[in-house]
Amino acid sequence: MKQMIVIVQEQDYSELATLLIRNRIHATKFMTEGLYLNRRNITLLICAEDDRVEEILGYIRQSCTEREEVCEVWEYNGHMMVQARKTLRIGGATIFMSNVDEIIKC
Amino acid sequence: MKQMIVIVQEQDYSELATLLIRNRIHATKFMTEGLYLNRRNITLLICAEDDRVEEILGYIRQSCTEREEVCEVWEYNGHMMVQARKTLRIGGATIFMSNVDEIIKC
Amino acid sequence: MKQMIVIVQEQDYSELATLLIRNRIHATKFMTEGLYLNRRNITLLICAEDDRVEEILGYIRQSCTEREEVCEVWEYNGHMMVQARKTLRIGGATIFMSNVDEIIKC
Repeated sequence: MKQMIVIVQEQDYSELATLLIRNRIHATKFMTEGLYLNRRNITLLICAEDDRVEEILGYIRQSCTEREEVCEVWEYNGHMMVQARKTLRIGGATIFMSNVDEIIKC
Repeated sequence: MKQMIVIVQEQDYSELATLLIRNRIHATKFMTEGLYLNRRNITLLICAEDDRVEEILGYIRQSCTEREEVCEVWEYNGHMMVQARKTLRIGGATIFMSNVDEIIKC
Repeated sequence: MKQMIVIVQEQDYSELATLLIRNRIHATKFMTEGLYLNRRNITLLICAEDDRVEEILGYIRQSCTEREEVCEVWEYNGHMMVQARKTLRIGGATIFMSNVDEIIKC
């Protein structure tokens, strides 16, 4: 069993959620925030059987696209934290995979 | 040390919280949402010493009961995602157990 | 790679966030609640390369200070849960460290 923590941008979420629900993959949704970009994103917790991991990664790749955007980011200007506007490649998803020893339903 | 991620329904939460607090088990509470049932639930993060895991599972079993309910779920009807009403056995809890290498307090 | 789940008090958060952003450490922020103290805190999820773990712990130590405070806590008085006022040492941070098998960006 693998624990997948999937961090996605808000605008990609609904397509990904549709793919997961349609394929009966259970997930728990956390409303989160990225520190650097200082904006809301969504973190999904998915526990996947080993033989479904590649399938799930496929849904993520299909729905979470990288794009260029002008973003407000926090930066240190040598004296203090300031907000700066930058063109960044954002979107895509970040997935942390680790082992789950056991899943218990009670 | 074990990391326990415990996903419970809202209506079971207060009984479980009472049991955990009374027995001085520290937990962190996340307001979450289940994708499939499309409704709010609660995720608890608990770090437990190995010899307290069974005790904690006991509290979860005691407070989180399965029940039959008519739920609104998302389904794919071949063309699009639609909401459907279904009688489902819900409730209970799902627990993901994994190893924690280290707990640091600072 | 290490997964660090860092639970901090709200009043320590902004200093810690500044240190993380300034040093380009990516983190995801969850608004959470501690069960025992019954108040909001913040949980950060950080994936760190092994050789940056000590550095990150340094930022946490620097920003998250223990203090004495009069807190409302939940206690069991033998009959029911009641709120009690206690002087507690709170603050500081709790960090759960575990291994991440893989980080995937897509």
